Amino acid sequence: MKEHKNCRASIGVFDSGVGGLTVAREIMRNLPKEHIVYFGDTARVPYGSKSKDTILRFSRQIIHFLRTQDVKAIVIACNTASALALDTVEKELDIPIIGVIRPGARVAVTATKNHRIGVIGTESTINSHMYRKLICEADPSITVYEKACPLFCPLVEEGWLKDPVTKEVARRYLDELLEKDIDSLILGCTHYPLLRSLIRDLVGDTVTLVNPAYETAKELGELLAREHLENPDEPSDPPATEPYRFFVSDMADKFGHFANSILPYDITTIQKINIEEY
Amino acid sequence: MKEHKNCRASIGVFDSGVGGLTVAREIMRNLPKEHIVYFGDTARVPYGSKSKDTILRFSRQIIHFLRTQDVKAIVIACNTASALALDTVEKELDIPIIGVIRPGARVAVTATKNHRIGVIGTESTINSHMYRKLICEADPSITVYEKACPLFCPLVEEGWLKDPVTKEVARRYLDELLEKDIDSLILGCTHYPLLRSLIRDLVGDTVTLVNPAYETAKELGELLAREHLENPDEPSDPPATEPYRFFVSDMADKFGHFANSILPYDITTIQKINIEEY
Repeated sequence: MKEHKNCRASIGVFDSGVGGLTVAREIMRNLPKEHIVYFGDTARVPYGSKSKDTILRFSRQIIHFLRTQDVKAIVIACNTASALALDTVEKELDIPIIGVIRPGARVAVTATKNHRIGVIGTESTINSHMYRKLICEADPSITVYEKACPLFCPLVEEGWLKDPVTKEVARRYLDELLEKDIDSLILGCTHYPLLRSLIRDLVGDTVTLVNPAYETAKELGELLAREHLENPDEPSDPPATEPYRFFVSDMADKFGHFANSILPYDITTIQKINIEEY
Repeated sequence: MKEHKNCRASIGVFDSGVGGLTVAREIMRNLPKEHIVYFGDTARVPYGSKSKDTILRFSRQIIHFLRTQDVKAIVIACNTASALALDTVEKELDIPIIGVIRPGARVAVTATKNHRIGVIGTESTINSHMYRKLICEADPSITVYEKACPLFCPLVEEGWLKDPVTKEVARRYLDELLEKDIDSLILGCTHYPLLRSLIRDLVGDTVTLVNPAYETAKELGELLAREHLENPDEPSDPPATEPYRFFVSDMADKFGHFANSILPYDITTIQKINIEEY
């Protein structure tokens, strides 16, 4: 088997905060041999209401930091940064980088039967129309209905996952998509899978809920195989360093608390760094 | 009248975003001779869920920027930054700086009859216990009840100012304060005055709602008089530069839209700067 010199390096994964842990979790599950360096930009979260220029600057700083940690590939585990920054930063990099939008769009195209897909996400993700663009490039016969849901992230962070208030907010946001008779709905923000059961209650069993996280881990696996970058070591081999390392730009304790509720194991060390220096 | 050499310089006013415009508005109303340079940190908003270290670093960068605009005094028009950064930055500065918390605490102490004051604010403001500390220093017989309301800012930014959802959220947050029989409630975040009528409906006529913005403008006026820093020119005199200037770190258009709904006149130019360079 051809083996790249960098194949034992880690996967860099980044997000505006904690949401990207839902993507990291899928990588851990599906690619258990891979090591991960995760960065959450908790000092500047959220990204979803900010401009392309700003998200691009933040993403470049984070990529610069991840490169100092010897990563062989990068996953943008944030829909907003995937929508606004991926196209630009992938041209600037000499290692592979993927986002969550292309995988999410791909699976939705496969899932829809009636060619009517709904997308929910942050304001910036929705305003970028990136999901619509990729879906329509793949199949121009599909119509895409988009809706920004800016209150979902604060509600998730408040922990009101099954609250009547959250249900009422979701009803407001989703009603206009349901009126369009969509049969698939992309959860286009990494926080939204945490509202899955509440959203399921509202949309009913006939609508397929698409979580791009799983498909992103799958695309990452294909990419590593294609580029001969798979880590050949068994997960049980004692690694040179901690296999999963976590960095944030602020509030390490709060991040750890949230991470431990999402990940299949308890993380013990989280390092805080000043991302503006990168 | 003694006149300081800097008396024609502007007042620097800053906030994490648009909320501080409610403070700028009071300064415009009450001190019409003064010029203002406003900075809203829209690239890194919100501040209310972030740590003291981070808010201190952000505040120092902003103060550094404001000094480049020739300001004679600075107002931190953000409760979170006032709570977490003012004590430190005032020791580092050779021009006067005030926040919104001391004025807000002062007026609440005067307002309460039954010595039971409620405070609502962001998570970081409430966790700092700064309102409680200042109130109890002024009058140890007063009991202060504090409650973080993290969903209020996103609801205001969504524009749901009189919405049943917002009312239900407010009921959740305020019920436990009302059970304590408070007779005064400090609106300890610059977004909250925009929810005043909804909060008024919930708390009834007997609770005094304290908006620190007005008292802050008053304290600024007293400070300028004491330090001989008042601008002697009449508002009608043609100023050397635009009397009110606005800077943001992101999303200038959205800021302008919000500003025009709050301020008594339409602002025309807003400059976007990279605050991380300061």
